[in-house]
Amino acid sequence: MIITLLTDFGDFYPGVMKGVILKINPKAIVVDISHSVEPQNVFQGAFLLYNAYKFFPNAVHIAVVDPGVGSERKALAFECRNHIFIAPDNGIAYPSAREDGIERIWVINENKTSEVTGVLSSTFHGRDVFAPAGAYASIGLLKEVAEPYEGDIAKLELFDYVVEGNLIRCRIVFIDRFGNAVTNLKAEYVKGRYVVFEGVKIPIVRCYEDVKKGEPLALIGSFGTLELSIREGSFAEEFGVKSNDFVELEQL
Amino acid sequence: MIITLLTDFGDFYPGVMKGVILKINPKAIVVDISHSVEPQNVFQGAFLLYNAYKFFPNAVHIAVVDPGVGSERKALAFECRNHIFIAPDNGIAYPSAREDGIERIWVINENKTSEVTGVLSSTFHGRDVFAPAGAYASIGLLKEVAEPYEGDIAKLELFDYVVEGNLIRCRIVFIDRFGNAVTNLKAEYVKGRYVVFEGVKIPIVRCYEDVKKGEPLALIGSFGTLELSIREGSFAEEFGVKSNDFVELEQL
Amino acid sequence: MIITLLTDFGDFYPGVMKGVILKINPKAIVVDISHSVEPQNVFQGAFLLYNAYKFFPNAVHIAVVDPGVGSERKALAFECRNHIFIAPDNGIAYPSAREDGIERIWVINENKTSEVTGVLSSTFHGRDVFAPAGAYASIGLLKEVAEPYEGDIAKLELFDYVVEGNLIRCRIVFIDRFGNAVTNLKAEYVKGRYVVFEGVKIPIVRCYEDVKKGEPLALIGSFGTLELSIREGSFAEEFGVKSNDFVELEQL
Repeated sequence: MIITLLTDFGDFYPGVMKGVILKINPKAIVVDISHSVEPQNVFQGAFLLYNAYKFFPNAVHIAVVDPGVGSERKALAFECRNHIFIAPDNGIAYPSAREDGIERIWVINENKTSEVTGVLSSTFHGRDVFAPAGAYASIGLLKEVAEPYEGDIAKLELFDYVVEGNLIRCRIVFIDRFGNAVTNLKAEYVKGRYVVFEGVKIPIVRCYEDVKKGEPLALIGSFGTLELSIREGSFAEEFGVKSNDFVELEQL
Repeated sequence: MIITLLTDFGDFYPGVMKGVILKINPKAIVVDISHSVEPQNVFQGAFLLYNAYKFFPNAVHIAVVDPGVGSERKALAFECRNHIFIAPDNGIAYPSAREDGIERIWVINENKTSEVTGVLSSTFHGRDVFAPAGAYASIGLLKEVAEPYEGDIAKLELFDYVVEGNLIRCRIVFIDRFGNAVTNLKAEYVKGRYVVFEGVKIPIVRCYEDVKKGEPLALIGSFGTLELSIREGSFAEEFGVKSNDFVELEQL
Repeated sequence: MIITLLTDFGDFYPGVMKGVILKINPKAIVVDISHSVEPQNVFQGAFLLYNAYKFFPNAVHIAVVDPGVGSERKALAFECRNHIFIAPDNGIAYPSAREDGIERIWVINENKTSEVTGVLSSTFHGRDVFAPAGAYASIGLLKEVAEPYEGDIAKLELFDYVVEGNLIRCRIVFIDRFGNAVTNLKAEYVKGRYVVFEGVKIPIVRCYEDVKKGEPLALIGSFGTLELSIREGSFAEEFGVKSNDFVELEQL
């Protein structure tokens, strides 16, 4: 069974999670989706998970961006049609779970999961709670460390843009390594031949080579949303945008 | 079957490629060679691939540094004596494929590969073209998504240095994490006891401990080429060199 | 058999090590613990290994932070109660091996290991010495490339803090991605309700949410030692500390 990891942990911590997982399920195939989610940016984590999980065969996805670690926030497991999502109750897994089709929600018992690691830290539930829960889920034994849950859960809406005529207010969700600014504006709202951003008229094209090197462009990227780019350059740097910024665009 | 990945994608995108691969070949062992190739630096990608593939058992190597993504450039598969290379037709896989011994070249049908992902984006052929092609190749079914190709292909020469007597003009190909500047000058051309770079006389030694901490040195590194280093320091930073720079050296 | 890797190599080099390992043991499950150890920081490498290995099932751990590469320093294998550690003789594996219980020490024969790679570089023993040795160890054939060793070895003491009444002098060992400053002061020495650092009175709490956003806090982190943090901020940046700094704290 595949277990994916998506966190804002950066280095080292994910390696420890893999040790914990392999202790419980030595046959697990662990795949990193990302450990570079912007620290504490639950929205970005949710967006990346939503755009990754569907390309996997049925899997357990552990997603931990967790500013509330150690507090009373619950740790949940979403048993869905094809996938299982393991995550803190802050909405990070919600858009993915809803899309896949939630069949049952479980609340994870931290005292049970931490029997595996021998410790329940207040800062690293990736190791002491989520990794063990994901590993148990991957062998069909979620019930050993979790109980069905029917209470409220945190929700999160990824596509919180506003379109009014030619004016769009959307969110920059992710700056990739190339400096492309990925927005959450769905392709179906991208019309016309240009977007105007901060007074600059940017052509909407099909691929990078449709403009000259160093020139800005907009296109429908691999997330199925509007992306703002500079060919062989960094849009984010040039225009000074960063993830979680709301931006206003005009379509011409 | 092992499938390696070498890209300039940085974070997130490689994780999605792994999902696509595992959907087609659940038994694939996916190994990251690098996702930190300098953005769009095809030459560096080619050099790193060339210096990595030979240390693997027979494998499929997916190499994607692809400034022309979404344009008319072809996606190729090189079926070689021991390895299969999957890459855009920009030369990135050429030196490796040539060394291993090309037996057949295939052109990948993007419409076929994108049936797996359900989408053919114009920015992320790593996901929609190269990952599926590599996965099919790993189960011996390249023919499902590619056709034999006998046309021209892009070539690339890794060892484009010039040696004239004691004067050398070579390329800095890779700056590693320690700030070592790896050149493409092959060991056999490294003679004498010193190289002079920007007026500084640098001893050619066998290992870092042959000079004092903080001092510059030159040696034959693990790529089998000349490397310029500072013991427990960063040559690249100190001397202001970066990858793709051509440098002039004198040998004494 | 699981083989873990912990190095200061950053990018590319670890991928090559995996190729070498899989050539010898195609069934190895290779897990990255970290490749971002601060360059040449053997102490940090030792601390991270010590805090990772115990969360793994029985495994071979290859740990390479190796300023002395290419010199006369020995390459060792520690066969312990549950785990095997493969490392240069500079102390990096010593605290872990000692804790797990050393049963036999081996000295690795570089001429034997480098038969696998066909080369014995003087800069990349990760590839030419440690990866092959780890792979052989993982299939029970360490004796093919190593001999029992009974001489002296380098030792290293992780917990080199000094506690005198309310005054503590300890070491910052690791700055994680969030800017948390992890010290080597064991939990049992953390008393009172505050630590004073550089004149700032910092509350000792249980979890991040116990203080307001942007405020400093101290807690027992996932390493079982004192950590200094800022809620949703970076302690390291704010207070200008870095790994390997010794810091003086007063407890109130």
